[in-house]
Amino acid sequence: MNYILKDENAVYHECGFSCESEIFLKFGSESYFLTDARYLTEAKEFIKNAEVVLMDRRDPFKVARALIRKSGIKSLVYNPLEWSVNEFESLNSKLLMNFKQHINFSQKKRIIKSEDELQILRKAAKLGANAFDSFAKFIQKEGLGLSEKRAFHEAQNIFKNFGELELSFEPIVALDENAAKPHALPSDKILQKDMLLLLDAGVKYKRYCSDRTRTVNISKNISMDKNSIFKDAKKQKIYDTVLRAQEASIKKAKVGVGASDIDKAGREVIEKAGYGKYFIHSTGHGVGLDIHELPVIGARSHDVIEENMVFTIEPGIYLPNEFGVRIEDTVIAKSNGVEVIG
Amino acid sequence: MNYILKDENAVYHECGFSCESEIFLKFGSESYFLTDARYLTEAKEFIKNAEVVLMDRRDPFKVARALIRKSGIKSLVYNPLEWSVNEFESLNSKLLMNFKQHINFSQKKRIIKSEDELQILRKAAKLGANAFDSFAKFIQKEGLGLSEKRAFHEAQNIFKNFGELELSFEPIVALDENAAKPHALPSDKILQKDMLLLLDAGVKYKRYCSDRTRTVNISKNISMDKNSIFKDAKKQKIYDTVLRAQEASIKKAKVGVGASDIDKAGREVIEKAGYGKYFIHSTGHGVGLDIHELPVIGARSHDVIEENMVFTIEPGIYLPNEFGVRIEDTVIAKSNGVEVIG
Repeated sequence: MNYILKDENAVYHECGFSCESEIFLKFGSESYFLTDARYLTEAKEFIKNAEVVLMDRRDPFKVARALIRKSGIKSLVYNPLEWSVNEFESLNSKLLMNFKQHINFSQKKRIIKSEDELQILRKAAKLGANAFDSFAKFIQKEGLGLSEKRAFHEAQNIFKNFGELELSFEPIVALDENAAKPHALPSDKILQKDMLLLLDAGVKYKRYCSDRTRTVNISKNISMDKNSIFKDAKKQKIYDTVLRAQEASIKKAKVGVGASDIDKAGREVIEKAGYGKYFIHSTGHGVGLDIHELPVIGARSHDVIEENMVFTIEPGIYLPNEFGVRIEDTVIAKSNGVEVIG
Repeated sequence: MNYILKDENAVYHECGFSCESEIFLKFGSESYFLTDARYLTEAKEFIKNAEVVLMDRRDPFKVARALIRKSGIKSLVYNPLEWSVNEFESLNSKLLMNFKQHINFSQKKRIIKSEDELQILRKAAKLGANAFDSFAKFIQKEGLGLSEKRAFHEAQNIFKNFGELELSFEPIVALDENAAKPHALPSDKILQKDMLLLLDAGVKYKRYCSDRTRTVNISKNISMDKNSIFKDAKKQKIYDTVLRAQEASIKKAKVGVGASDIDKAGREVIEKAGYGKYFIHSTGHGVGLDIHELPVIGARSHDVIEENMVFTIEPGIYLPNEFGVRIEDTVIAKSNGVEVIG
């Protein structure tokens, strides 16, 4: 397959380097990494398996067009999600080329992780889990009376380890009814004893993402090990239901199982408890260089689990204007089950 | 003009609301804001001048296509930079519509700011300037011995005002030779006395951006008022040259002047001092909802300054492997000159 890539993570996966200005070309066994003068020296230093070529920032696709023409290839695969209409027209202008669309073909190539990638993902998960514990300590000590906004800010600091790590995504820090909104922005709501707190956060280690969610009761004794104890009986009931759902999905997950069956196993637990209509999203998603990769763990997914796929299992119940609960771990698929990495 | 928008700031400018899932349609005097179920309630609450319509997340362009068909319009303007090839094909499928490309037409509409926008931009600039002063105090007190990375992290905290504000962009905090790289990432380099420190940062207030750069000598007496005193004579000479260039461009800027003339005024100062080839970027850019808007203040710009355009003036000299200096303010164009807002 001959292809062209522009997405940073897709390019990084091909050649171990990326920057904010680049095009990657693959014609059979030939690989080219195109970048502008700002990044040329670094690219030449770090890229081993592709020829580094200078591009013109004023017409970033000019050199790519010339290389494509010179190669004599007849067709080229691209991801139509990666290119704006404007960029693609600029690439395509004056080229007599059969461009083939292949949505997310880089993510498809990356769906099974190598041993090296698994080691990095385990380390990312460990660093993420440590930050959950640090955040719990912070809330226990200094959390009461802070605003959700301020707690969000501290979560950023803690997950960034004061500048040493990058975030996989902006953390979600949500109290009670805000936890019922999957996309709540942090508010001025004040953290008080026995409120429910949902924390969804992750870090990047060597560019690979961690992803985890915990829902806890605010108290002097917050545990991030999923044994949350709530003062309110309804919260406890919902929490226990979500936890049983997550356990059912985790138990179901192994090599050869359909991703939709993993979703079904947890969803049935929630449906039987009478909360099916409040589980408003899929069970999980692949994790790697991108925070959302393949496979899709959902009711309509046709993905079948293979060894060393890495994905989240994160059922939730969201009761509007009351509260929401989500419990999420990232797992590695193995023949006899999954390895929960955090 | 009939048009379709998808960019959050472009949509916000039309109707005072935006979220991460939206399409805005304008057919003559009719306006539609399409969003999915997650944002419907908020959209209905905040949008006054557009009809809020529910979209289907599984096929986000279905309702848009139906509205376009129903409207009977013959042509529709879109920004080819806003749409991926995939999204545009999905919008366009089965529609017999004359789509007209108009690059950045929303930014063109927004190039002259209203009095309300100017008030917000002044306030954003003020908050940004206050954060510069806070950062100076922090460096004076606690800066020596910290890494660039840690100083970058503290800059983020200070500019975010510990969670109260958003950043216009990730701050640039760069020492000596790192300040010579316009896109330097923060390193482990340690802040020491009499090093040169470049800080380029801004905040958002009511979604509008501030943007400012200062270059200072690390000492017990850091001033953000542009009167930087360097221990090293070469640094002082380059600094004074950049400052004179900025003053020349600021003096030139007023209603009726070509943006390229503003660039030329400062560039000539730097060229005469013998550093022309080290001023490797344009003089400035518009600022508003986006951190980079119109007009372009550069040698090849055809923009002519009009009253209440808002833009930066930020000449710089970058000596590779030595150091870099940039001084930047944001200004509002008036008939007799500019109002420097920060």
